[in-house]
Amino acid sequence: MASNRIRRVGIVAKPHSPHARAILRRLTDWLRRKRIPFHCDPGAASALRGRKRADSRQAIYRKVDLLVVLGGDGTLLSVARDIAPTKVPVLGVNLGSLGFLTEVTLGEMLETLALVFSGKYEISRRMMLQARLFRAGRQLSDHCLLNDIVLNKSALARIIEIEVAIDGRYVTSYRADGLIISTPTGSTAYSLSAGGPIIHPNMRAFCVTPICPHTLTNRPIVVPSQVTIDLSIRKESDEDVFLTLDGQIGVPMKSGDRVQVRRSRHSIHLVQIPGKRYFDVLRNKLKWGGK
Amino acid sequence: MASNRIRRVGIVAKPHSPHARAILRRLTDWLRRKRIPFHCDPGAASALRGRKRADSRQAIYRKVDLLVVLGGDGTLLSVARDIAPTKVPVLGVNLGSLGFLTEVTLGEMLETLALVFSGKYEISRRMMLQARLFRAGRQLSDHCLLNDIVLNKSALARIIEIEVAIDGRYVTSYRADGLIISTPTGSTAYSLSAGGPIIHPNMRAFCVTPICPHTLTNRPIVVPSQVTIDLSIRKESDEDVFLTLDGQIGVPMKSGDRVQVRRSRHSIHLVQIPGKRYFDVLRNKLKWGGK
Amino acid sequence: MASNRIRRVGIVAKPHSPHARAILRRLTDWLRRKRIPFHCDPGAASALRGRKRADSRQAIYRKVDLLVVLGGDGTLLSVARDIAPTKVPVLGVNLGSLGFLTEVTLGEMLETLALVFSGKYEISRRMMLQARLFRAGRQLSDHCLLNDIVLNKSALARIIEIEVAIDGRYVTSYRADGLIISTPTGSTAYSLSAGGPIIHPNMRAFCVTPICPHTLTNRPIVVPSQVTIDLSIRKESDEDVFLTLDGQIGVPMKSGDRVQVRRSRHSIHLVQIPGKRYFDVLRNKLKWGGK
Amino acid sequence: MASNRIRRVGIVAKPHSPHARAILRRLTDWLRRKRIPFHCDPGAASALRGRKRADSRQAIYRKVDLLVVLGGDGTLLSVARDIAPTKVPVLGVNLGSLGFLTEVTLGEMLETLALVFSGKYEISRRMMLQARLFRAGRQLSDHCLLNDIVLNKSALARIIEIEVAIDGRYVTSYRADGLIISTPTGSTAYSLSAGGPIIHPNMRAFCVTPICPHTLTNRPIVVPSQVTIDLSIRKESDEDVFLTLDGQIGVPMKSGDRVQVRRSRHSIHLVQIPGKRYFDVLRNKLKWGGK
Repeated sequence: MASNRIRRVGIVAKPHSPHARAILRRLTDWLRRKRIPFHCDPGAASALRGRKRADSRQAIYRKVDLLVVLGGDGTLLSVARDIAPTKVPVLGVNLGSLGFLTEVTLGEMLETLALVFSGKYEISRRMMLQARLFRAGRQLSDHCLLNDIVLNKSALARIIEIEVAIDGRYVTSYRADGLIISTPTGSTAYSLSAGGPIIHPNMRAFCVTPICPHTLTNRPIVVPSQVTIDLSIRKESDEDVFLTLDGQIGVPMKSGDRVQVRRSRHSIHLVQIPGKRYFDVLRNKLKWGGK
Repeated sequence: MASNRIRRVGIVAKPHSPHARAILRRLTDWLRRKRIPFHCDPGAASALRGRKRADSRQAIYRKVDLLVVLGGDGTLLSVARDIAPTKVPVLGVNLGSLGFLTEVTLGEMLETLALVFSGKYEISRRMMLQARLFRAGRQLSDHCLLNDIVLNKSALARIIEIEVAIDGRYVTSYRADGLIISTPTGSTAYSLSAGGPIIHPNMRAFCVTPICPHTLTNRPIVVPSQVTIDLSIRKESDEDVFLTLDGQIGVPMKSGDRVQVRRSRHSIHLVQIPGKRYFDVLRNKLKWGGK
Repeated sequence: MASNRIRRVGIVAKPHSPHARAILRRLTDWLRRKRIPFHCDPGAASALRGRKRADSRQAIYRKVDLLVVLGGDGTLLSVARDIAPTKVPVLGVNLGSLGFLTEVTLGEMLETLALVFSGKYEISRRMMLQARLFRAGRQLSDHCLLNDIVLNKSALARIIEIEVAIDGRYVTSYRADGLIISTPTGSTAYSLSAGGPIIHPNMRAFCVTPICPHTLTNRPIVVPSQVTIDLSIRKESDEDVFLTLDGQIGVPMKSGDRVQVRRSRHSIHLVQIPGKRYFDVLRNKLKWGGK
Repeated sequence: MASNRIRRVGIVAKPHSPHARAILRRLTDWLRRKRIPFHCDPGAASALRGRKRADSRQAIYRKVDLLVVLGGDGTLLSVARDIAPTKVPVLGVNLGSLGFLTEVTLGEMLETLALVFSGKYEISRRMMLQARLFRAGRQLSDHCLLNDIVLNKSALARIIEIEVAIDGRYVTSYRADGLIISTPTGSTAYSLSAGGPIIHPNMRAFCVTPICPHTLTNRPIVVPSQVTIDLSIRKESDEDVFLTLDGQIGVPMKSGDRVQVRRSRHSIHLVQIPGKRYFDVLRNKLKWGGK
């Protein structure tokens, strides 16, 4: 059980969601009755139509003890990349159906908040991935991600060749549509569609999953999170390759570029309600059928 | 056994292949000794450095009784698309390792030609696929292909939605990286990497293989070659989708575009040597280990 | 549309089904009102508790123009093996949820029968598989099956080796838990769980699907139904191998035994209602989500 | 680098291996020249035809500082189960081709021994799995395994139902041919054939891999080694289920039996030569093609 008292709440909402206004009013009314100060990001403030001033997300992350995210897994992913260093706990409420990361439904929102404010919750610390892009020996960018990075080819190229080294030792050269490096949290996202395993979010590991590999025995590999993974594109195939971060940010790559992946020193702190567990969400999302 | 007498031979060579010159000289010397007239495409003529005038491939296809293709499977695919209506038999000689389509190695070339000229060969008629692209109700293009068509997303889009109907009846909407429609010949190319089955080249069938489908139960489907398959892109995802033909020709697609796939009325006639069979090539290419 | 007049109906019911009695009374009352004579197998007669005399299934097959099967896909499979030579159309009504073969639900039963009696139905002719077991050169048994045959190892053996030849030519030796030869109809049964493709039931083909093969490139192979497939067990691994027919009949195999698979000269004639199609059933059974 | 001095060597050999005699003589001559005392198990002593007295394997494990295993991965697996508590380092020499566990080839044997005796080696500590079988609340047996346990059905049963709980919480009920719980070391054995990922041997994890699951979304799951996994067979399917340990020991299961899997407190200490690494073996065994 977590015990820090929650004094201030931040609210982030996916912009232009159809029912966001009604839900935000329910949420903010509840917080007002409890006399809990709160701050809204531009998405939430706009849904409330001016009843509350908007703060930037970055400003909110620095002054709250709990962040409520109203949206889908995509919204939470984009929050995670920025909030991680602050260690602020994040509660994901799904505006649509159930998500892997936003596992509280609208109907459960207020009941869940009541539990959280009485200290009846747990924190699931999810490891994140640091990806650094190097060009000509210089670091171009540095990213902290919750789900995955993907190196993949453009639609018109048939195959690319990606050389992988782990802790400085050659693993193999994948001839494939692309390659995914995912965290345990990201294992149920793109990696699963590409044939990867489900990895429990408490694990500290990466999954290296090739996308449509030419060599059929190139199967997904799970490695410990302590390793350093280096990816480089073979020169002849460089011009049509992109680096995609959490499926949201795309960076075109050039000949000789190198991507280095390690475990990030930050984690995301997800609020979890006792009684709602990982395997229940998995069973539901993958339609396994119940007990 | 095939019996038509071969009077004229066409030679097509992949341009800029390292050993092409030596091989072409071996081949043309052999033909001269046999007093068989032959015609060279620009790739072959250039490798012979002016010893023979170049004809256009299209001109060659109309005047020969046998076409020898020196190259890899890619070279043969591009020939197949144009030569199919002429029914000219095609003998594929692989300049590198063994191919699925170019199953004669350099060492076997002359011995194989001797068999062919003495009538000791068989024709493997491979079905081809007709793909027509429609925009706003008008047909934009019409293609005849040996391997496959692929609808896929650009590197930066995460997922697209492709609606499939067979003989006018809704099958499903694939949320995926893309979708492959392959012939039996194409089943061992891209479709295999995406999880599709191996389909014997004598079959008359299409394989509908989704690429990294979001719905894990979207498995490859084999349908008879008599059907008409209609593919359409859901509007919201239209701008990043490409149609790729035999992995060689790319066409950007627009909102509302539709692709219709049927069996082509043309087939490619591949020359095959008795004793070298499909399963032997398969065993070798997939490293199954032998008897 | 089918046009033969239906004069006599046979009813076969899975024994001991919970709701069979109520359903059978609904069905038999409807037939009596229509003045259609009918015959019940022991399962159906027992559910009706003596209101109708039982005939053997074999006797029924010889005197009816339509057979109604109340049960699951398993019941229909066992009927198919015997009724095929008579060409009597079979209508499968599922006592539980929807089946691949029993695609009429209880709620649709009477409405469907009304359509069938007014000639508004189609016949889906499904190819069947003939499997013959040879020992020491002598034929031990001869089976006609709708779904599949499986050669597999006992629980305690780790791996067996099965040599496959097609039309007398060596394909490969599978080192695996077992091997499935399925018809298109059987492709959505065991073969699908083992990684095989979905094959449209109008196809005339076999799928050769290895179960947990040691060689990872041993992928499922689809071959035309004209071929003859020979399976033999390598001697050292003979004592723990079983031949299973349609998942229902098991035969222990001995050293040197050989199984020969061909297309059966019989087909099963399944009654289908226009408007309910294969892909609708598939979408429902595999939970693809609808339009 | 490991530093304990090696005073005594044990030798275990797979019985009846064709070239064992020549290899053992080479090995024992080398040890004699180095004046290193050694002990032979019955397999090794018999290959040496009486030149050396046989000790039981158990006796050997208690008095040596290094065990050399001559055989395949199967031989090493059976040694691992017994030697683990002693922490004696094990060097696997493969009598045939390269193995995942016996990664020293015959040609490298003496050179490798020389490195080991000069302290130039590393120990790869591989986690093991403890499996306990309970019947009617009483523990029937307790096993320590290096690769995997498998619950599977007999050849004649079509499907079984296995309920899995992790740390006391329900995960799902698998309807499948069986279920594998593998260690990282075992991930490249049976689990890989059943569709599981490759897990780096330094990981501390289990992989739960269903065999031919009826529900296609039942994908392999990787969980941390700290968990307790409980497996139980649904009553109706009990009589045809077997528990198989490392693919070598089979135990018939009864209705209501339960298997509990945890990380063993023992590990196997494998001797590894610097410069020969996990990914090199993997690349070779899976025929990925080299650099």
